Amino acid sequence: MEKIRVAISGYGNIGKAVELSLMQNPDFELVAIVTRRSPESITPITKNISVIHEDNIDTLVNKIDIMFLCGGSATDLPKQTPIYAQKFNTIDTFDTHAKIPEYFEKVDSTAKENNHISMISCGWDPGLFSTMRVLGSSILPQGETYTFWGKGVSQGHSDAIRRIDGVKMGIQYTIPVDNAVNEVRRGTNPVLSTRDKHLRECFVVAKEGADSQEIERQIVTMPNYFADYNTIVHFITEEEFKENHQKMPHGGFVFRTGQTNDNKNNHIVEFSLKLDSNAEFTASVVVAYARATVRMYRENRRGAITVFDVPPFMLSNLSNEELRKELL
Amino acid sequence: MEKIRVAISGYGNIGKAVELSLMQNPDFELVAIVTRRSPESITPITKNISVIHEDNIDTLVNKIDIMFLCGGSATDLPKQTPIYAQKFNTIDTFDTHAKIPEYFEKVDSTAKENNHISMISCGWDPGLFSTMRVLGSSILPQGETYTFWGKGVSQGHSDAIRRIDGVKMGIQYTIPVDNAVNEVRRGTNPVLSTRDKHLRECFVVAKEGADSQEIERQIVTMPNYFADYNTIVHFITEEEFKENHQKMPHGGFVFRTGQTNDNKNNHIVEFSLKLDSNAEFTASVVVAYARATVRMYRENRRGAITVFDVPPFMLSNLSNEELRKELL
Repeated sequence: MEKIRVAISGYGNIGKAVELSLMQNPDFELVAIVTRRSPESITPITKNISVIHEDNIDTLVNKIDIMFLCGGSATDLPKQTPIYAQKFNTIDTFDTHAKIPEYFEKVDSTAKENNHISMISCGWDPGLFSTMRVLGSSILPQGETYTFWGKGVSQGHSDAIRRIDGVKMGIQYTIPVDNAVNEVRRGTNPVLSTRDKHLRECFVVAKEGADSQEIERQIVTMPNYFADYNTIVHFITEEEFKENHQKMPHGGFVFRTGQTNDNKNNHIVEFSLKLDSNAEFTASVVVAYARATVRMYRENRRGAITVFDVPPFMLSNLSNEELRKELL
Repeated sequence: MEKIRVAISGYGNIGKAVELSLMQNPDFELVAIVTRRSPESITPITKNISVIHEDNIDTLVNKIDIMFLCGGSATDLPKQTPIYAQKFNTIDTFDTHAKIPEYFEKVDSTAKENNHISMISCGWDPGLFSTMRVLGSSILPQGETYTFWGKGVSQGHSDAIRRIDGVKMGIQYTIPVDNAVNEVRRGTNPVLSTRDKHLRECFVVAKEGADSQEIERQIVTMPNYFADYNTIVHFITEEEFKENHQKMPHGGFVFRTGQTNDNKNNHIVEFSLKLDSNAEFTASVVVAYARATVRMYRENRRGAITVFDVPPFMLSNLSNEELRKELL
């Protein structure tokens, strides 16, 4: 069997997690890691693979089937993807929901012009959760969709805390409100405000002599990030922070609740994730969809695609016959 | 927008439920109901549609885009589908898992020879649950898949009870064992026997003078159906039976639990359904997949397909642009 040859661009949380996931998938072969840093500064886990500076990506042209773009959505991907899509098939985790249509169009035209395929916005949300929203709303057209995130670390909110004067360390967990989740699960179709759905719990290490009341006030009143939520702030010691807040768990729920037969019958579809490592699960999703993307490329699909375009059988290493026999 | 013109063959539980579901999907137009009974004996809910005897299905050729085959898997579908697939695109709910490969091959060759598309084994299991098993095992290759069914009525087990001497009425609920579900949900990867996973609860109305101890003995020792399970038998009155056991709820769970990073991190993917009406939810799934099947036919796909072949966007009435903007 011909292996899927890949490279990873960006060796941060997601890039390293993609490398780990590839080790669980023997149909892939990691060829290189691409970095903007000095290549000597990087020691991949995989033995005997090249580390290449981003200025030299042309050396990988025709040597790989797809490039994993593991940069951030805010500044890296909008700049990188259109350049990479000229030279390679690509897959990325672009997750700025509001900007997806614009990003899609740009990547789509570049990929098509250069005879490539590019999967954008892969992962679990956007990604698996999006697929569940489409399945749910298509199957139960009369109904409501609910998405809850957490319990999990929000990088953006943690950064916002750390920018406040007097904060030494800080982390923020997004937590779905139990009552809200349970109401949805019971099928009562509640109308839920932002505040009803999630609460925000913060753990802060203050600098010596800092005014903790003022820090708390700045957090809970911060527009966009915290003001619309019930926010709990805990001040803890640096030791406690290091001991209990180094992991990056995440997860969440997608519900579709719907009615049939003139509202006589109610149905509840629930999809949930409970993840010890957000990055490693995201990478696992991305690797399965990279397999599908390469298969679609080999069947002459070109341009930008999303998870919505992928038939499930393409994600699997098993043949369609095996899937029908064993998993249908 | 051109409507999807359809007919329903078989006006039992599933056929009636498909009719109800079509009413929630304005892009469909129900043209006719096909029956093996006397057409006069059937009064559809939909106004002004024809009821046609199965001997006269040729009158529907070129008048519909797809035929919903709503017969049973044991005897109806294996006989009907290859005949219908000569004349129409079809979709069915064939659910005899062990016979799917053989059934697929037969329907596939007939559909291809006659330039049609046929989706087989659609519904929630086989169907949505199968899709979740493929997603889960593709994303977390190192892990375990668990499927639980219920709480719900098993038609086959209820029939088996009713065939016992002295039984007037009987119904059987398949119930997932809470402990087993909770162990899986906690990520302990338990090894579960048949008996560990489900219990079987039976409600029986005995005929006057019948030996209830003997009925119970025959139930709990019945090979294949009950002997491998913990089975609870309740004897109730006919009034109680009619009051509490006329609904057909169902549901279940698919779990994929998996590990990444050398077993350091654990991830739990859970998909569950809680359905007031098994038939109505099944029909809702089938209608969404019929939309996709017709779209795939219009894109020149031919032969037999399953849920594994369907990209999610094809299930939805929304455009791909709308899906990316609103649901991704």
